[in-house]
Amino acid sequence: MRKLQHSDYMDLAIEEAKRTHASQDVPIGCVIVKDGCVIARGHNTREQNHTALGHAEINAIAAACETVGSWRLSGCTLYVTLEPCPMCMGAIINARIDTVVFGAYDVKAGCAGTLCDFCRMGFNHTPQVIGGIREFACKALLSEFFETLRK
Amino acid sequence: MRKLQHSDYMDLAIEEAKRTHASQDVPIGCVIVKDGCVIARGHNTREQNHTALGHAEINAIAAACETVGSWRLSGCTLYVTLEPCPMCMGAIINARIDTVVFGAYDVKAGCAGTLCDFCRMGFNHTPQVIGGIREFACKALLSEFFETLRK
Repeated sequence: MRKLQHSDYMDLAIEEAKRTHASQDVPIGCVIVKDGCVIARGHNTREQNHTALGHAEINAIAAACETVGSWRLSGCTLYVTLEPCPMCMGAIINARIDTVVFGAYDVKAGCAGTLCDFCRMGFNHTPQVIGGIREFACKALLSEFFETLRK
Repeated sequence: MRKLQHSDYMDLAIEEAKRTHASQDVPIGCVIVKDGCVIARGHNTREQNHTALGHAEINAIAAACETVGSWRLSGCTLYVTLEPCPMCMGAIINARIDTVVFGAYDVKAGCAGTLCDFCRMGFNHTPQVIGGIREFACKALLSEFFETLRK
C-alpha cells in the first residue's frame, strides 16, 4: 500500500468541508493527522452553532485534544482547505502542532504567510507551513458556495 | 448608584481568575460585558480540561455567544487579566467585540500592542484596546502563582 501524501489528506479535509452543506456555513474542512492516522476532523459551524469559535480548525483541535487527552498536539499535522485566520493560527501555535498544510490562500485573513506570517512574529512555537495543496479544488468549493449564495 | 468603571469589571475578571485555584492552571480570568451587565465569564482551563483552546477569553466568548445566540458580539466589552495571545485576540476580532480591556501586559505573547498589534495588521475588525487596568493586581496574581509553583 502506498504511503498517503499531503494531497490525500487534503482530500479528506475537502470531504469534511462538504459537511457544511446542510447549514449556511462557508465550506471549510480540516483533519488532524498523527503517525499517518486521522485523529480528528472538523468543519465550519459558525452559523450552525452561532459561535465565533466555530471554525474548522478550532473544532478539529478541540476533538484532537480530547482524543490525545492533552493540550499538546506535538507530532501532529493539520490539514485545512483555507489558510488559517489569526484565531486558528494562534490555536495551532498554542497546541504546538508541528505542520500546517493548507489548500487555498486567503488574502483577507490568512496568517500563514499571505496577509501576515505568524511564523515570523516571535511567538513561542513555529509550525512548518505548506500552502497551495489541492488549491484549485479548495478554491472551487468556496467560489461555488458564494456563487450559489448570490443567486 | 454610581456607574461601574473599567476597574470594577476588571475586579470581577480577577475574581474569575482565582477560580483556577483548584487546578494547576495559570490564574487568568475574563468577563464580557454588554449594556453594563456581565453576560459571560471564563477562566483558564487548559490543564484542567486538557485543551489548547482553554484560555479564559475563549471560554468567555463561547459562553457569551451561547447567551446572545449569535457569533456576533457587537456592543460587548471584554475584560481580561492578561493581554490576549494570538488565538484569543483572533477570536475577539472574529466575534466583532468592540472593546478589549486588559490588566497585565504580556511581553511573550501579547497581541494587543506588546509583542505585536493585531489592531494594525489589516484584519476586518479593529477593537478598541485599553491596557494596564488594575495592572498591579493582575500581575501579582501571576507572580504569586509562579512563585508557589517554583517552591
